[in-house]
Amino acid sequence: MSSGKIASQTAHAAVSLYIKAKSNPIFFIEIDTWVNTGQAKIVLKGLDENSLIDFETKASDANLISQTVRDAGRTQVEPGALTCLGIFGKISEIDKITSHLNLL
Amino acid sequence: MSSGKIASQTAHAAVSLYIKAKSNPIFFIEIDTWVNTGQAKIVLKGLDENSLIDFETKASDANLISQTVRDAGRTQVEPGALTCLGIFGKISEIDKITSHLNLL
Repeated sequence: MSSGKIASQTAHAAVSLYIKAKSNPIFFIEIDTWVNTGQAKIVLKGLDENSLIDFETKASDANLISQTVRDAGRTQVEPGALTCLGIFGKISEIDKITSHLNLL
Repeated sequence: MSSGKIASQTAHAAVSLYIKAKSNPIFFIEIDTWVNTGQAKIVLKGLDENSLIDFETKASDANLISQTVRDAGRTQVEPGALTCLGIFGKISEIDKITSHLNLL
């Protein structure tokens, strides 16, 4: 994917996670704090679709919010391709799942 | 900027624009429609800070919502660097401002 395509997939995950968190009583204060303290994001390089699905399961097991992005496939990737996984929560919790990945 | 850095700046603009639009009576129905119809985003390559500021002015003059992103500068760019401009609104209106730019 081009830088622009990666950016749009990441933005999709971020907006969707924000909406999910705002509608979840467990997270809606935490998400406002996140917005008001700089919206920290860490973008990591995934390996393949299966590993993203595995991370999604682990995030769910850890009671974190996650959001997969599947692309319509009009450009650059096949329709329905899993391009991005977003996870929202405490960094210490997310690190348990993704700390072995490199920055993108 | 790396692809990951570009992605995080773009996601920042997208989340901030979403929040702005949801709190604006002129746009809050339009933003829900956008969310429910696939959240289309077009990521374009800007030229420099001055051109982004110029686009921001034009977006404001056209009554569109826009959001600049200035980076804290902990990695890759100088503190306060203007890295990204997001614009929300009808594609036909945004095209009047940015249609000469290439996809990133």
